[in-house]
Amino acid sequence: MESRYFTIHSHPKGLPTRDVFSLESRTLPALEAGEVRVRNRWLSVDPYMRGRMDGVTTYVEPFTLGQPLEGAAIGEVLESRDERFSPGDLVAHMGGWRDVAQLPGSGLQALPDLEVPPQAFLGVLGMPGMTAWTGLNRIAQLKEGERVLVSAASGAVGSLAVQLAKAKGCHVVGIAGAPEKLEWLESLGVRAVSYRDKDARQLGADLHDASPEGVDVYYENVGGICLEAALDNIRVGARIAVCGLIDGYNAETPSPGPSNLSRLLIRRARMEGFIVTDAQNWEHYPTFLKDVGPLVAQGKLDYKETVEDGLERTPDAFLKLFEGGNTGKMLVRL
Amino acid sequence: MESRYFTIHSHPKGLPTRDVFSLESRTLPALEAGEVRVRNRWLSVDPYMRGRMDGVTTYVEPFTLGQPLEGAAIGEVLESRDERFSPGDLVAHMGGWRDVAQLPGSGLQALPDLEVPPQAFLGVLGMPGMTAWTGLNRIAQLKEGERVLVSAASGAVGSLAVQLAKAKGCHVVGIAGAPEKLEWLESLGVRAVSYRDKDARQLGADLHDASPEGVDVYYENVGGICLEAALDNIRVGARIAVCGLIDGYNAETPSPGPSNLSRLLIRRARMEGFIVTDAQNWEHYPTFLKDVGPLVAQGKLDYKETVEDGLERTPDAFLKLFEGGNTGKMLVRL
Repeated sequence: MESRYFTIHSHPKGLPTRDVFSLESRTLPALEAGEVRVRNRWLSVDPYMRGRMDGVTTYVEPFTLGQPLEGAAIGEVLESRDERFSPGDLVAHMGGWRDVAQLPGSGLQALPDLEVPPQAFLGVLGMPGMTAWTGLNRIAQLKEGERVLVSAASGAVGSLAVQLAKAKGCHVVGIAGAPEKLEWLESLGVRAVSYRDKDARQLGADLHDASPEGVDVYYENVGGICLEAALDNIRVGARIAVCGLIDGYNAETPSPGPSNLSRLLIRRARMEGFIVTDAQNWEHYPTFLKDVGPLVAQGKLDYKETVEDGLERTPDAFLKLFEGGNTGKMLVRL
Repeated sequence: MESRYFTIHSHPKGLPTRDVFSLESRTLPALEAGEVRVRNRWLSVDPYMRGRMDGVTTYVEPFTLGQPLEGAAIGEVLESRDERFSPGDLVAHMGGWRDVAQLPGSGLQALPDLEVPPQAFLGVLGMPGMTAWTGLNRIAQLKEGERVLVSAASGAVGSLAVQLAKAKGCHVVGIAGAPEKLEWLESLGVRAVSYRDKDARQLGADLHDASPEGVDVYYENVGGICLEAALDNIRVGARIAVCGLIDGYNAETPSPGPSNLSRLLIRRARMEGFIVTDAQNWEHYPTFLKDVGPLVAQGKLDYKETVEDGLERTPDAFLKLFEGGNTGKMLVRL
């Protein structure tokens, strides 16, 4: 059986262009003992993948040039030589960016038994949801009723962070760009603030208007002027969970950091980076599913998906992440 | 009785000049009930006082123009209308920058009963020592045998931080400038690295040579290139205790922050500002005295003092803090 997949043959500089991605195919060998063959139904594209294209190890191994790219995917088992899986089973795995994946059964997870669409396990009940939950609850130790600020608040992670914070009775401010994203945030009871055409000072002033008493928790996905503006508004004892700094992912030269880091001192604040897939975080996935799964099954979380159709569109879906082209989780449907 | 004191009549911009400080005197009124009159023997000058000269509230109230400046001091009771104090008692209080202080007994502390010189309670067993201990143990949660980096490592706080870390069996690197400071650090078994004539990249490379496996804990007193170079060397799970950012205290315009804050994310690191006088920190002062007092009494901590003589020299002593003119605790002896 043929597998069609995307690969890269060079390390992009700055924002990758479409032609960096090459669609290729190979004939899959017969299954070895313990292996499973899966027809992918949904592929995930995520900002962290940009880092894996650089050819250097950061917190994940870089992609190997010429080999299929990797990423989270949901698919249906076609054939199995692992007794835990049978044809027709829906599974989650990391063999994305391709239509048919063949991998050891140890790399597959059966989807948990919840009344939700399967692609939810790539978004609200997958890594993005777990990332939002971990940053708020484990890293920032959010308490009920606190004041919360989220950057990239309509993104895959941010859109869940604002809602999980709302569900905890918090006053929530979200930073986003496009008018329809701001409107969607307001519809959830989130105070929406646009970053567009602003410098850090102006954005900081607008955040102050949206939360005059400042913020206890800042959920950081962006960096740049968002971080500087947020630091101007932190309260004593604030916690900043650094989930991502997408502002810098495509920068070819280092950009200066915020000029007001001394706010951490003045406000006795804490800023902490985390990687959700670290064992000490991911081991809480069952707790997360128990917490958030029912909210999803009952329709209490308004999770957005932006869907591109067809394997060929995977690079376009990925690039949209850096252009503000997605609302909520960016997915490819095969 | 006359009291001679220093005051300021305007808020300095940038590094204060000597003429900002005005030596004046006033006749003290008779003691009211509960008040105590103290002849100061030792005055402390500290970097945080610069912030109090700006006329804006940060984490302490600003100094009042025209009134005596304030700061930690050790003196001998001359006259008392508080039954807890009698003439001849040695006390610590905040009525510094003057020769005779008159203040409510509630603002005085009798010196703890330890066989150490009285001025030790302004340094190694006072706020600087408590600051070093709190940053390492409570904020950075230093564990035995970890790799520690300290900036301004020969300063009042840094020189104690490096020794407390050594006493915990840690591998310790200290950043300093002058050759005699580097030499003193090396004499303690600290790997000394000069920041002079280096950019962040070069300093980072030299820190790497001094601690090839990186650092678990960074005790930050400086900011600027020290912070950027340190971030380049943090290990997974590193903790940065931000005690001070003296590099920026006299800056007239904000300077950009480090361009590599993304290291916090890549290394899952934590950066936390703290103020030692906050109640949740200062309440551990008795534990600190129990821990560190015996080390001082037994001569096991090599604490340095730089002493200026005479009240008139207090502003000069203060300004030396920003010129690298002190080794260890900067004091004025009256």
